[in-house]
Amino acid sequence: MNSKPQAWFREIHQPSGSSFGLRLKSRLHSEQSAYQKIDIYETTDFGHLMVIDDCIMLTDRDNFIYHEMMSHPVIYSHPCPKRLAIIGGGDCGTLREVLKHKEIESVFQIDIDERVTRLAERYFPQLCESNQDERAELLFEDGIVWMQDVAPGSLDIIIVDSTDPVGPGEVLFSEAFYQSCFRALADDGLLVQQSESPLLHQDLIKGMRERLQSVGFGTLQTLTFPQPVYPAGWWSATLAGKQPGLTDFRQVAEDDIDSLYYSAEIHRAARILPPFLQRYLRE
Amino acid sequence: MNSKPQAWFREIHQPSGSSFGLRLKSRLHSEQSAYQKIDIYETTDFGHLMVIDDCIMLTDRDNFIYHEMMSHPVIYSHPCPKRLAIIGGGDCGTLREVLKHKEIESVFQIDIDERVTRLAERYFPQLCESNQDERAELLFEDGIVWMQDVAPGSLDIIIVDSTDPVGPGEVLFSEAFYQSCFRALADDGLLVQQSESPLLHQDLIKGMRERLQSVGFGTLQTLTFPQPVYPAGWWSATLAGKQPGLTDFRQVAEDDIDSLYYSAEIHRAARILPPFLQRYLRE
Repeated sequence: MNSKPQAWFREIHQPSGSSFGLRLKSRLHSEQSAYQKIDIYETTDFGHLMVIDDCIMLTDRDNFIYHEMMSHPVIYSHPCPKRLAIIGGGDCGTLREVLKHKEIESVFQIDIDERVTRLAERYFPQLCESNQDERAELLFEDGIVWMQDVAPGSLDIIIVDSTDPVGPGEVLFSEAFYQSCFRALADDGLLVQQSESPLLHQDLIKGMRERLQSVGFGTLQTLTFPQPVYPAGWWSATLAGKQPGLTDFRQVAEDDIDSLYYSAEIHRAARILPPFLQRYLRE
Repeated sequence: MNSKPQAWFREIHQPSGSSFGLRLKSRLHSEQSAYQKIDIYETTDFGHLMVIDDCIMLTDRDNFIYHEMMSHPVIYSHPCPKRLAIIGGGDCGTLREVLKHKEIESVFQIDIDERVTRLAERYFPQLCESNQDERAELLFEDGIVWMQDVAPGSLDIIIVDSTDPVGPGEVLFSEAFYQSCFRALADDGLLVQQSESPLLHQDLIKGMRERLQSVGFGTLQTLTFPQPVYPAGWWSATLAGKQPGLTDFRQVAEDDIDSLYYSAEIHRAARILPPFLQRYLRE
C-alpha cells in the first residue's frame, strides 16, 4: 500500500471552538493582495473553494443558498426596486442573483479588493456570468466612503455582503455605517446584511438590530438558512426597512427567477425564528 | 510562551470530503461496548460530546434541535397518540421530548446497546431526567426483532432515532424493516426517521421515501432543520403516515411543551422544501 496522505483545508473558528474542513485535490492559486490573502483550491466533493485570510468564503457546491437568500428576499420585499448597491460581494454571486430581476435598472457593486473579482472570473465563472450586464457597475473602492458620498435617497436597496465582523469587516456593522446607509436609501428603502450564525452569534444579531433601529430603521426581519461551509452550518441575514410595518413581499410566478433554494414559501419559512432566538431578541 | 497544543475531535465524513471538529478540554470516558466504541469528551464550547465509532452523536449545546424535531412534529401530526416506540435513541433525548406530551400513555425505547444509556445517564443527565417516568420502558435488545414481534396495530407512533445507514444502522432503512413498522402501527399510525442531509444525501432521502411508499405508507413528508454537528450542518427527518392525505397537525398552546426550537410555525416552515430538493424528489 502506497497511499498518499489526504490534503485538507480546515477553518478553525476559535470563538466557538469548532472547525470545518474540506478535502482537497489541489491548490489552484494563492496570493497576498493589497488587502488580504486569497487562496483558491479544488476540493474533492465541493468543487472550487475560495478562502480569504484562512476563512472559507464560498464553494461551488453550496454558495447558491447564501447568494439567493442575500438577494431575492430583500428584492421581493421592495414594492418597486430600481437602484441597488452591493457592498462587498466581490465574488459576484450576489450580483448575478440580483440581475435576474428585470425591474432592477442599476446595480453598483463596491468591493475594495479587485483581486477577489478577477479570481472569481477565473475560478467561479458561473458566478460572474452577468458581470457584463449593462445595468451593472463594478467599483473597486472603499464601500464605507462610497456610501458616505452617494446622493441621499438615491438607492432602493443596499445589500451588505461582507466578511465577518472582525478586522476590516467590523466597521460595516457600526452605527456610523448604518447612518450612511439610512441616508442613502429612498423613503421605502431596504437594507440586508449577512448576520452570522443563529446558534453561535445571537449577541451579534441582537446588537446589529439595536444599532439599525437606533439610526432610524423601522422594520427588522432576521431570516435564517443553511450555510454548510460557515461555522455551525446555519446562517442568517438581517433585513431592515426605513418604514415600519413591512410584513409582506411580492409573490411572483415560480419561473420569474431561476432559483435552486429560494421560493416564496422558503422566504416565508426563513422568517420564522425558533423560540430560543425569538426570546433572546425580545429580552 | 509555553502554550499547550489544542486537542480536537474531528469527524471526517468521507463520502462528502468534509470534516467537522470540536475543541476539547478532556476525554471523560472511552470504551468498547459489545456493539461499538463509545467516547465521551468535554469540549471547550459545546459542553459534553458523545462519539460512537468515531461519528459525532450529540453535544450539550445543539442536541435540542434534533431531539425536538424528531419528536414534536410527528406527535402533533397524530390526532390522538397514546402508544409510542423509539428504535435507537439510547441517549434518551428523544424520550425526554416525547414524555413532555401528557396524552402519551406508554413509550418503549429499544436500543441494542445499554451502555449508551448508562453513559448518557452519567454524562448527559438532563437528557435522562424522564427515564424514571412510569410511562417509559427502556429495553436493551434488537429493535428489528422487537418490531417483528410486536402485536400488529399496537403502536400509534414509531420514531426511528438511529445512526447513519451504514454498517449496523443500514437495515433500519430497509423495506423489510418498514414492513414490520407498517404492520405494527394502527390504521392512523405514523413513523418518523432521521433521513440525513438534504444537501449531501438526496439519493438516500429519495430511496427511503420510495421504500416507505412501496410497503404501503400513504403520506410522506420530509422536514429539514439545522444540525450543526452533523455533516453539512443541515439535516432532515422523514415522516410517513399509513393514511394518505395527512397535511395538518394539532396546533396547541405555546406553553403546551417547553421547547427551544420547536413551535407550530417552525413545524410548518420545516415542511417547506427548497426547489432543488422538491425537483429531485419528484423526478
